[in-house]
Amino acid sequence: MVKKIAVLGSTGSIGRQTLQVIAAYPERFRLVALSSYRDVGRLAQQARSFKPSQVAIADQSLYHELKRELADSGVKVLAGEEGLCRMAGQSGAELVVNAMVGFAGLKPTLSALSTGISLALANKESLVAGGHLVMPLAAKTGAQVIPVDSEHSAVFQCLQGQDSHAVEQIILTASGGPFFGLSGASLDNVTPEQTLAHPTWRMGAKITVDSATMMNKGLEVIEARWLFSLPYDRIRVLIQRESIIHSMVEFRDGAVLAQLGAPDMRIPIQYALTYPERLSSSVSRVDWLTLGALNFAAPDQENFPCLDLAYRAGQVAGSMPAALNAANEEAVRLFLERRISFRSIPRIIDEVMNKHKLVSSPELEELVETDREARAKAREAAVRKG
Amino acid sequence: MVKKIAVLGSTGSIGRQTLQVIAAYPERFRLVALSSYRDVGRLAQQARSFKPSQVAIADQSLYHELKRELADSGVKVLAGEEGLCRMAGQSGAELVVNAMVGFAGLKPTLSALSTGISLALANKESLVAGGHLVMPLAAKTGAQVIPVDSEHSAVFQCLQGQDSHAVEQIILTASGGPFFGLSGASLDNVTPEQTLAHPTWRMGAKITVDSATMMNKGLEVIEARWLFSLPYDRIRVLIQRESIIHSMVEFRDGAVLAQLGAPDMRIPIQYALTYPERLSSSVSRVDWLTLGALNFAAPDQENFPCLDLAYRAGQVAGSMPAALNAANEEAVRLFLERRISFRSIPRIIDEVMNKHKLVSSPELEELVETDREARAKAREAAVRKG
Repeated sequence: MVKKIAVLGSTGSIGRQTLQVIAAYPERFRLVALSSYRDVGRLAQQARSFKPSQVAIADQSLYHELKRELADSGVKVLAGEEGLCRMAGQSGAELVVNAMVGFAGLKPTLSALSTGISLALANKESLVAGGHLVMPLAAKTGAQVIPVDSEHSAVFQCLQGQDSHAVEQIILTASGGPFFGLSGASLDNVTPEQTLAHPTWRMGAKITVDSATMMNKGLEVIEARWLFSLPYDRIRVLIQRESIIHSMVEFRDGAVLAQLGAPDMRIPIQYALTYPERLSSSVSRVDWLTLGALNFAAPDQENFPCLDLAYRAGQVAGSMPAALNAANEEAVRLFLERRISFRSIPRIIDEVMNKHKLVSSPELEELVETDREARAKAREAAVRKG
Repeated sequence: MVKKIAVLGSTGSIGRQTLQVIAAYPERFRLVALSSYRDVGRLAQQARSFKPSQVAIADQSLYHELKRELADSGVKVLAGEEGLCRMAGQSGAELVVNAMVGFAGLKPTLSALSTGISLALANKESLVAGGHLVMPLAAKTGAQVIPVDSEHSAVFQCLQGQDSHAVEQIILTASGGPFFGLSGASLDNVTPEQTLAHPTWRMGAKITVDSATMMNKGLEVIEARWLFSLPYDRIRVLIQRESIIHSMVEFRDGAVLAQLGAPDMRIPIQYALTYPERLSSSVSRVDWLTLGALNFAAPDQENFPCLDLAYRAGQVAGSMPAALNAANEEAVRLFLERRISFRSIPRIIDEVMNKHKLVSSPELEELVETDREARAKAREAAVRKG
């Protein structure tokens, strides 16, 4: 009955919350492997607390530091992309939680699935860039891909026990982020600090910026296309300001199913770990009376063009979503470093997409090349646009 | 692939909409039996149109009139309670839709289930008065009870494919009816016409009055107790003014599933007929942007005491819910005949409940006796309270 779990990206926001859920059910879960990009201190601390059999640090240069931290702990230490991928596929885990941030999550995703290990997927870039590799691989090895993103978990929950042929459309909800309602020049001077103050969710920095630009929703649209095998014209985005409705499925008989709850990632994380069961949780419940209302609005495509860029990249397909994603990762980093403005983010992505040499069915190495090139082009564009 | 269906109460609001759904899918459904309380004209017309093998008229005195109407049609004509029950159990239908109004629906429900025929149940009084007979009988014969009420259909849809041990509570939504927000003396002089002008749903007269008094929700709470085997303290009522969220299920992990849709009974009716499949429907879709918001409020227990009366009757159990229901049916009739005021409805029910001699595990005949007595007491109380 004890499920053995590996957590990739255990020191980030989703990773830490995953460990909270695991810690709450010691009789149900055993953590066998952990990894971090470069947070040696926290990773070592997690390892001492959970006693996994192995840990990996993605930044190769930190291998010795981590090794020293865990001397005499009996924990095996791996490092670099190769170490990480080895851990993803061969830690003995029955479920790999991929909570890494960015394109770097794709290779470990493929490693886990290729050995038939099911995946709780929080790394949306795995599907955005490599959905055409990830989903067929999962189908081939019989591994499950269970979404962790609150929106996709909501859709996944709504689809359980339902007639899968009967889905008319998926409605992904979005809070709209901290700048919803602002327009034009008032967006010119928004700061990283303002951008990181999300109205409803506490998340990592990258995804919080993506949420403010609406790129997060764009990436989720592409993710949904792969998870639920629907064409883009049947994946819609709706602003739901309170972040209580996490997404909806509309069926061809006119019925709609929605999953709701407090904006707390521990709900979808726990569901991914316990699926198809549901265990008790002490997360706060929605107080419908205090809430009072759930408000809807249309996404503002004019002032937040990232959503349309993502639809466009998804429809072009091939290597274009990987280019979009890489340009976005780079632009967000530059914005957080105060080297470009908020509104330069979509401009840079648009320019990179326009210059991208499309590969129609890219293999993994072609995606890696697309990622490298798009980042370089984004940096070039940033110098010009600032 | 053609499902043979009997519709009891085919001339009422739910019955007519059921026939619309059946007519839309001639390759999927065949109507084999129909019944009405006393609407000979419409019943005969439906029979000529759908060509069932038998029809029944509940009011025995109308047998000859119906027989005459259907002379040379080849349709077998039955009459009276006995004819109706025979039809419910022996029409050759695979599914009986019980769309009758009131306590009279209980016996045909039992007839269908006792022969193992599954039931699409819109007659809530079957469960309110006789849930302790209906559900064990269904379990014994293996017949399914599929709810048609929009709220219970919503819960039923939300529970598909879910961990049934994990339900924390059911939240039945209520529009609040035409008088939500009114209080005290302003409710003294409301007329039947005002009462019948429901803000969101078009329904028959009895249920529309019940919706205005909140007794409809009270009956639904008792119905939910039987359909979903939950104690009353885990069945909650929430005002959802727009009648778009049809009900919700809260699970122990903090996740909530809700079923939403336009307030159109053809959605739950069709689902009950096609379950577990979903066929296309041309009912209107929810336009989230025009809708703008979903509003919640607490039920007003002080000014609309019928909901609490129903919880009380449900918790007392035994014959009390049958007494509540009978007193309510009688009070609603008297209100529609302008013989009592709107606010006398709960007063009369309360008095009947207080005088009721409880039978703790009533058999069918004891329920019939409870029903008869409670109606008589309601009429007596009405004379005094007017």
